[in-house]
Amino acid sequence: MTSAPIDFYFDFSSPYGYFASLHIDKLAQQYGRQVNWHAILLGPVFKMMHISPLVDVPLKGAYSRRDIARTARFHQIAYREPDAFPIATHHAARAVLWVQQHAASHAVGFIHALYAAYFTGNIDISDLDTVIRIAGEIGIASSTLREALNGEAIKDALKEKVAAAVAHNVFGSPFIIVDGEPFWGFDRFDQLKVLLRDGRI
Amino acid sequence: MTSAPIDFYFDFSSPYGYFASLHIDKLAQQYGRQVNWHAILLGPVFKMMHISPLVDVPLKGAYSRRDIARTARFHQIAYREPDAFPIATHHAARAVLWVQQHAASHAVGFIHALYAAYFTGNIDISDLDTVIRIAGEIGIASSTLREALNGEAIKDALKEKVAAAVAHNVFGSPFIIVDGEPFWGFDRFDQLKVLLRDGRI
Repeated sequence: MTSAPIDFYFDFSSPYGYFASLHIDKLAQQYGRQVNWHAILLGPVFKMMHISPLVDVPLKGAYSRRDIARTARFHQIAYREPDAFPIATHHAARAVLWVQQHAASHAVGFIHALYAAYFTGNIDISDLDTVIRIAGEIGIASSTLREALNGEAIKDALKEKVAAAVAHNVFGSPFIIVDGEPFWGFDRFDQLKVLLRDGRI
Repeated sequence: MTSAPIDFYFDFSSPYGYFASLHIDKLAQQYGRQVNWHAILLGPVFKMMHISPLVDVPLKGAYSRRDIARTARFHQIAYREPDAFPIATHHAARAVLWVQQHAASHAVGFIHALYAAYFTGNIDISDLDTVIRIAGEIGIASSTLREALNGEAIKDALKEKVAAAVAHNVFGSPFIIVDGEPFWGFDRFDQLKVLLRDGRI
């Protein structure tokens, strides 16, 4: 019997999602699991929950910026708060989804490249041309991707993906589901690890 | 030079505050610090932030109940979700404040007794008589405490305490401030420990 994959949900505007993206593959490999990467949009989810992005909430916002930087230092992760933060991530998420559908072997590398550009390189990945350029650097044909991102099909596909995430009660980033057990936050990786190791928590 | 105390803010309705309350003293002692215990009310703070209690937020609420129980197991902490949850905690917080003012040596024991009653004994500590009974069990004269809790002075004192907490940007439970560095959540104890150990993080 093969173990079920780890479903890893993230928004490209989420620093904690970025931190988690740097650890999830190793953790999965260590316990013989595959990772299903799901780039989603939290905007519509937050709207449904009547909540605001973390950094926009009074008091919590200022604390969060501090906690994000401190958490990066604590885990020795390269991080720079981008000048534009938070950002809209629909172009990035659609591009990832298209690459997953049409050039799957490039998808994980593309995700890492986008996150690194944004959270270490201060590159605003809300911009369509920037997303296409980053895709180009890892071998995705720019004209094909641009055409796809201008079409309706990929927009509908991402909407369906976000709806499917919500149907699984996903409401944050990172959000991990494995063997039916949900984990919200990079700070739950210690508990996630116990589940992967022991088969229960 | 003596090290500054650890300011430990909590709401009696907060399970993560309860978990943290069981660890903060040992951690402080290990690094030669005192703990200033601050029983506060998050209700007015959440109102100001335009947010709802965790367990009342769609999606997040159901997840949180699961995460709370799982976190208790992970840290091997006795925990039972109370039938009445969350609850109003102004009687408990005022009683603690009064004990801190008038019978200080009993205060920490009283805090632990209230938290244990609520989160292991399923005892609804929103009830004034229950708070007074628990105080009585650790040697606080019931009639004196009841008279104090019926007066205006203690109500004003708690209001001031909550306002002072907000002035220090406290917005959650547990919330720890040490040497000017804020930590929100029991899941930041690993980072808190580094600050106490190294003097920086």
